Amino acid sequence: MTDILSRRDLQFLLHEWLDVERLTEREEFRGQTADDWNDALLLAEQVAGDQFQPHNRKADLNEPRIGEDGKVVLIPEVAEALGVLGETGLMAAAMPEEVGGMGLPATVSGAIFAWLHAANVGTTAYPMLTAGAANLLIANGSKDQVRTWVIPMIEGRFHGTMCLSETQAGSSLADITTRAEAQEDGTYRIFGNKMWISAGSHELGENIVHLVLAKIPGSPPGVKGISLFVVPRFLLDGDGSIAERNDVVLAGVNHKMGFRGTVNTVLGFGEGEYMPGGKAGAVGYLIGDPNHGLSYMFHMMNEARIGVGLGATALGYTGYLKSLRYARERPQGRRLASKDPVDPQVPISEHTDVKRMLLAQKSYVEGALGLELYCSGLVDDEMTAPGEETRKKAGLLLEILTPIAKSWPSQWCLEANSLAIQVHGGYGYAREYDVEQHYRDNRLNPIHEGTHGIQALDLLGRKVTMQGGAAFAALFETIGATVDRAEAEGGEASELAGALHASLESLAGTTGKLWADRDPELALANATLYLEAAGHIVLAWIWLEQFLATSGKSGAFYEGKRQAARYFFRFELPKTAPQLDLLGSLDRTTLDMMDDWF
Amino acid sequence: MTDILSRRDLQFLLHEWLDVERLTEREEFRGQTADDWNDALLLAEQVAGDQFQPHNRKADLNEPRIGEDGKVVLIPEVAEALGVLGETGLMAAAMPEEVGGMGLPATVSGAIFAWLHAANVGTTAYPMLTAGAANLLIANGSKDQVRTWVIPMIEGRFHGTMCLSETQAGSSLADITTRAEAQEDGTYRIFGNKMWISAGSHELGENIVHLVLAKIPGSPPGVKGISLFVVPRFLLDGDGSIAERNDVVLAGVNHKMGFRGTVNTVLGFGEGEYMPGGKAGAVGYLIGDPNHGLSYMFHMMNEARIGVGLGATALGYTGYLKSLRYARERPQGRRLASKDPVDPQVPISEHTDVKRMLLAQKSYVEGALGLELYCSGLVDDEMTAPGEETRKKAGLLLEILTPIAKSWPSQWCLEANSLAIQVHGGYGYAREYDVEQHYRDNRLNPIHEGTHGIQALDLLGRKVTMQGGAAFAALFETIGATVDRAEAEGGEASELAGALHASLESLAGTTGKLWADRDPELALANATLYLEAAGHIVLAWIWLEQFLATSGKSGAFYEGKRQAARYFFRFELPKTAPQLDLLGSLDRTTLDMMDDWF
Repeated sequence: MTDILSRRDLQFLLHEWLDVERLTEREEFRGQTADDWNDALLLAEQVAGDQFQPHNRKADLNEPRIGEDGKVVLIPEVAEALGVLGETGLMAAAMPEEVGGMGLPATVSGAIFAWLHAANVGTTAYPMLTAGAANLLIANGSKDQVRTWVIPMIEGRFHGTMCLSETQAGSSLADITTRAEAQEDGTYRIFGNKMWISAGSHELGENIVHLVLAKIPGSPPGVKGISLFVVPRFLLDGDGSIAERNDVVLAGVNHKMGFRGTVNTVLGFGEGEYMPGGKAGAVGYLIGDPNHGLSYMFHMMNEARIGVGLGATALGYTGYLKSLRYARERPQGRRLASKDPVDPQVPISEHTDVKRMLLAQKSYVEGALGLELYCSGLVDDEMTAPGEETRKKAGLLLEILTPIAKSWPSQWCLEANSLAIQVHGGYGYAREYDVEQHYRDNRLNPIHEGTHGIQALDLLGRKVTMQGGAAFAALFETIGATVDRAEAEGGEASELAGALHASLESLAGTTGKLWADRDPELALANATLYLEAAGHIVLAWIWLEQFLATSGKSGAFYEGKRQAARYFFRFELPKTAPQLDLLGSLDRTTLDMMDDWF
Repeated sequence: MTDILSRRDLQFLLHEWLDVERLTEREEFRGQTADDWNDALLLAEQVAGDQFQPHNRKADLNEPRIGEDGKVVLIPEVAEALGVLGETGLMAAAMPEEVGGMGLPATVSGAIFAWLHAANVGTTAYPMLTAGAANLLIANGSKDQVRTWVIPMIEGRFHGTMCLSETQAGSSLADITTRAEAQEDGTYRIFGNKMWISAGSHELGENIVHLVLAKIPGSPPGVKGISLFVVPRFLLDGDGSIAERNDVVLAGVNHKMGFRGTVNTVLGFGEGEYMPGGKAGAVGYLIGDPNHGLSYMFHMMNEARIGVGLGATALGYTGYLKSLRYARERPQGRRLASKDPVDPQVPISEHTDVKRMLLAQKSYVEGALGLELYCSGLVDDEMTAPGEETRKKAGLLLEILTPIAKSWPSQWCLEANSLAIQVHGGYGYAREYDVEQHYRDNRLNPIHEGTHGIQALDLLGRKVTMQGGAAFAALFETIGATVDRAEAEGGEASELAGALHASLESLAGTTGKLWADRDPELALANATLYLEAAGHIVLAWIWLEQFLATSGKSGAFYEGKRQAARYFFRFELPKTAPQLDLLGSLDRTTLDMMDDWF
């Protein structure tokens, strides 16, 4: 058993809390058993430990580079690990069986990917991106496109990317300039550059399937004129075999602080280096209808954002476990009550401040893992729950929780990594130990797939107000039901419920005040604080849920869960009070700041 | 003018707030004028910009390594920059003229070093360490030791180090095992290993003067049996010229996440590679009396810790200015009120959430710079203020503020660097921009020179209780005087004063509760929260001071100062309320956590 993630905790979350067994009763998962899922998880743990973890540091120290032949050079272990993963079929764990997937619930697939992320986020990004591209095509592509591009991806022969950003257009996708010119045969020719493209060029497989946002000339300005295209690195023959090189070229490799194992590229489309069919432009195939590209992309955004949150969580989790092991093995100093220098030293895990740093990490990472798996459960419920109302409610909850599931672990599991460094002292700052890499890797997560500030606007500006507040109401009702259960249980559960209930009421009151004047500039001025306060309240709810799931159970594991819940309620939840006070005051400090005052 | 630090802000802090001119009236600074000091600052700015800044990234990308001859290889720019710095005399800005220093006030010297840190912390560490070693010898060494070792250091020929930690003893110096055996000629022979020794081996000068903590056999156990020795890399002839190699050898270099320009080493003493005088052991010269080593070292600790705080501040400051420039130059998106996609994009500095990130940075870094220069002013006052009482009070304030001056910027100017990355978006995560390096560099600061947790124990366990609470009372009285002045001014100043006064009263009340039972384990259980709450209250006081210093002044610079003060009072100071509540409840969550619950 590796110490990169906790098998015991996953069992608790999946079986003792989320009752993943209930999914076996659904038509969509007919024939699958909880034992099958446990076997898949054990397999993921084994692949993560044997294939992904061993080259995590090596990939960091030997970042991708452009070789003399102009091709991207990765360390060979990446291809080997992906080969083994491909053989297990785990990459397509949650994909439909019709296209070669395993058809497992998203909840189980989430736990599978948590193992891979915890072992090596840099290598895991390749199958994550491929799975994301495949899912997008399954949801929005034609049957022909699925057969042509998705099946080879699931077979591990083709890889995928998402090409959204451009040098001058990151958060503001309305301003992309890549253009797609319609051809008489129904295909398009793509011209432009794309920036920050992860896995944009490599030799891991036979082909790379780029999903590219571009504008068809004459389309409406802004986001309503963006279309989505399949632009493969190599064109295919009629029988699907690799044919001519398409005009997608590697324009450069970005050098990052962390996440170095994943090659990040600048790509040029239609620059004239290749002339497919003797003509200028990269050949592209329209997905769905013109001008609907961004909505197709956003359809997959929930999945991608939960994936980022899960990756951030896994990095936090593995750093926590490593700092715990270090703290137990490192003798240093004596207890405050015993300062005699001839007494033997104690492991630093016995110092209260070290226990604080470990307990904080535990509360962040086990809370975040709970949230991510809960959200994966909503994906399952939205697709498979019996009853339209239940599915609809799951969808609403997923909408409002997604910005939190993306941003909260990106902030707090990064903080967990910082604490893991701190527990290690000087050793934590040295590259001989893993935790500094986890910290650098994790710092990407508040940036990509929509920055922290973009998530805040999404939550307060879009999700809170959507359908007349229906998503907010669904969340309020769901947390309220947990509060009711806890109050019915009485004792300590009831005390925690009281604190959560008060915070939730305060959040609701603040939300009302923010939107009372329907002035978006004022309402959204401090949206980031709203995101952070709402995030902490949601995590307190997840912790109350976990606390309730330990009810009547004794032993060190359950005591630890209860203490982590107490920690979160005593040290973390109260941080929301000044945030909500500030929000409720409709503070204008940031809004009123003038540029020349800086 | 470079944009690594703000000349305008330094002028404000030194002249409009701290009234550095008052120091010209003191005997110790006779003959110096404020113009002299401004000239020294301009010179520092020039050296920082021309010599230190240009190789900051190169030093990060080409970290020190051990060459084939076993010697440490640094990029040549380091020696060139230090050569120019040596010619200016600025390294010894605050040292006495008798030993070749400039005899400037510590306040001015602090501002000089702020420029160097902002340009390049990795290279600045070399003169910082040398100055620290020289100051320790000036304070505690014999006249002969000062002549032999200090003068060549100030001339730039010798460098210095501090050798405290060992592999098995970092925070717990009581457990060092390096031993010093007395010789008949009054010298000692040193045997042992030292870990994390910055600048421990290099070819920047003729010699390296190691100040080494070691135990003389038969001394009392623990910290009461630690002595301090000069152990040079090369022994000297009677005329001070370089003679035989001493037995101090490079056992390895550590590979760090950041701060890579500063070589960090493992040193072996008396391992037998050299046999000075034909005998085993590294030759060492006792400083002062046996068994007083740690108190000599701690005497210099205030200086070293303020130096760390200043370095952290400078990194935060330079990151802030770079993110501000980026935000003003980067067009992206439109204002919320104008979503028409054919409108031109605005610079991101116009987005409220970006303004929030810039204003937060401004409040952290300008507040921290104020605190560090205030503390340098206390060093001046402790040494030169007219009247014994004033000096004594300055000393007490310095004692209680030092853990905050060290830890607060290490936490919040690191957070500023994180915000600087966030403002840059994906570019901030790329090594093509500076801010990711500042963030990595700054992450060292909560670790070295006493970890964050050690500072917390120092503040609450030692400084708050010292001399029957005299230091705490001095701080309370000093902040109270600012509150009184602000209340007398009325208006907005009075409002801010009210908030600060309430927080200060709460801190005092909490402090009383914590020590009411005289149970150190309980009192200190959440010492880190105490450090953080006290730090925020002290910074709010520094901001009220700066607010008052803008009184009656108009213009963008002063408006910016006032808005940053408002930001700190509205967004930051309220964070202390839940921290003080928790502390006041004598919470036992961390104390009660059991090891097997993790």
